[in-house]
Amino acid sequence: MTAADDSVFLRACRREPVPHPPVWFMRQAGRALPEYRAARADIPMLQACTSPDLIAELTLQPVRRYGVDAAIIFSDIVVPLKAIGVDLDIVAGVGPVIAKPIATSRDVDLLRPLEPADVDFLDAAVRLVTAELGATPLIGFAGAPFTLASYLIEGGPSRDLLLTKSLMYSEPELWHDLLDRLATIAIGFLRVQVGAGARAVQLFDSWAGTLSPSDYRHYVLPHSARVLSEVADLAVPRIHFGVGTGELLGLMGEAGADVVGVDWRVPLDVAASRVGPGRALQGNLDPALVFAPWEVIADRASDVIARGRSAPGHIFNLGHGVLPGTDPGVLTRLVEFVHQDAATA
Amino acid sequence: MTAADDSVFLRACRREPVPHPPVWFMRQAGRALPEYRAARADIPMLQACTSPDLIAELTLQPVRRYGVDAAIIFSDIVVPLKAIGVDLDIVAGVGPVIAKPIATSRDVDLLRPLEPADVDFLDAAVRLVTAELGATPLIGFAGAPFTLASYLIEGGPSRDLLLTKSLMYSEPELWHDLLDRLATIAIGFLRVQVGAGARAVQLFDSWAGTLSPSDYRHYVLPHSARVLSEVADLAVPRIHFGVGTGELLGLMGEAGADVVGVDWRVPLDVAASRVGPGRALQGNLDPALVFAPWEVIADRASDVIARGRSAPGHIFNLGHGVLPGTDPGVLTRLVEFVHQDAATA
Repeated sequence: MTAADDSVFLRACRREPVPHPPVWFMRQAGRALPEYRAARADIPMLQACTSPDLIAELTLQPVRRYGVDAAIIFSDIVVPLKAIGVDLDIVAGVGPVIAKPIATSRDVDLLRPLEPADVDFLDAAVRLVTAELGATPLIGFAGAPFTLASYLIEGGPSRDLLLTKSLMYSEPELWHDLLDRLATIAIGFLRVQVGAGARAVQLFDSWAGTLSPSDYRHYVLPHSARVLSEVADLAVPRIHFGVGTGELLGLMGEAGADVVGVDWRVPLDVAASRVGPGRALQGNLDPALVFAPWEVIADRASDVIARGRSAPGHIFNLGHGVLPGTDPGVLTRLVEFVHQDAATA
Repeated sequence: MTAADDSVFLRACRREPVPHPPVWFMRQAGRALPEYRAARADIPMLQACTSPDLIAELTLQPVRRYGVDAAIIFSDIVVPLKAIGVDLDIVAGVGPVIAKPIATSRDVDLLRPLEPADVDFLDAAVRLVTAELGATPLIGFAGAPFTLASYLIEGGPSRDLLLTKSLMYSEPELWHDLLDRLATIAIGFLRVQVGAGARAVQLFDSWAGTLSPSDYRHYVLPHSARVLSEVADLAVPRIHFGVGTGELLGLMGEAGADVVGVDWRVPLDVAASRVGPGRALQGNLDPALVFAPWEVIADRASDVIARGRSAPGHIFNLGHGVLPGTDPGVLTRLVEFVHQDAATA
């Protein structure tokens, strides 16, 4: 047992009793923080994501500032794709942009497995971070095969995912080959992070919520399940999250998650009944809610905490990433509130 | 009883037995149709929406082409806002763009009730359409107060609705004044359409699915409920639809709907149990699915029909609007399939 093993965050992930729900925020390292804007300055995102010192600094900033119970490595889900040679960039205000979107089996064939040497900067960054963090656990992460596929096929963010779904329905063999390769890449990316010291992993399937349950089960779940099962031997909690996944929560748990992330649309008590016993929940304050007056925030945070008691374990978080215009002072106050409100309830 | 009263569509709305589910498609009049592109040509959207002959032609085109069981008037949810003097345009590829977004009570005060004379073009168009339609019912529609408010506050389409939610949380009095005025406008818009011959109405709360159930109940439901209750005396079925509203289906029914529209994320049997008895369902094939090979489409359409039997009445539709690149031949085949598959099952 290390100090991190005994942290509130990892205990909640393991569904052990905790004095209060642990708190962290998706996208807690980011533009909401003045120290982030100062450190990133004009450094392009992909350059920032491959610089160990900068990764470490940006990862640690929100831990210092907010007093959150977990850090998450500063990176992006497309970093491993770039690392194996996919020509892409992360454009400010847009997101990932792929130079040559995937359309054929020849394109898919180019997606080789990730080798640790492809992301040696990440190994170095995780070691730097964990040396600083002490008892605060670090979360590693990867993009789930479906969400990675959607960027590769659409060429960037898309509302309807029409090209993605068309390929999925029309060329199921090519589809499964593509997702299998992306699963292998995600596994490699997670193993590097845990190998270097990450104490939990989160699989982000950000856009899975655009799928009906039957499509998710048929076209996506087997690949996400493989990612989660092929990191099981690492014995770290596996968090599985997507947006708009109310109807998929049970399936996302079935895929092999220890913790299911829930967006703000589904009250946690409802989510607990859909996910079933044996899995903790993470969430789920609307990220827009932190722009409300404090009394509204406190009221809704209390509600999230109360409903989270329906789950066998609860990690407090927003229902999606911190929005860029968020007041960091509010997040600090929210962390204190969750630690105190829950402890005194 | 008129012939329209006895139509499959209105019978299904009333939860009476029907030989097959009626079918229509949200956004069935639109760019997927070559005859639409020819008739619209370079005519700006708002001009098209105020020209009775063109409204009538565009409304009738999909009825002729697809053999759908209902027409829906060609218009846009922001048409009544434009009609009372809000400076806005509908920009191709973007959506509504508001010249001066709403931020203060002075802005809200400018939103006066809609008078029938403000939309005399719509009265004329509905009369032209219903004279042509014969036994096929025409659906009138309006934007729900929340969705209209979101456009007015954001200035156009928005992913996070951050300004909208900020106003909602921070200035509840102003918020409720705004939504009350928008409800009055929606009521006026619907009453004109039914007065001229529409036989059903659909209230589109397209973006309500961005809200948690408690926010929806507190900030939105009372206003949508007023719209639906203040058209109850017209004795036409009231359909209530939004995207991503899996957790809101029960509340959207409670608001006073006879038919609850369901997007593709929620299987109709699940939706039926959330909505409860006494309300029909409408939906819910993924609009991207019609880009799949026919055998996949047929399989999923059969599944929608089968699950729709869990509801006391089912109107077949897509789970959101027809996408612009859709092959109209596929929609024609889908209408035939629903009429036949269900009849022979």
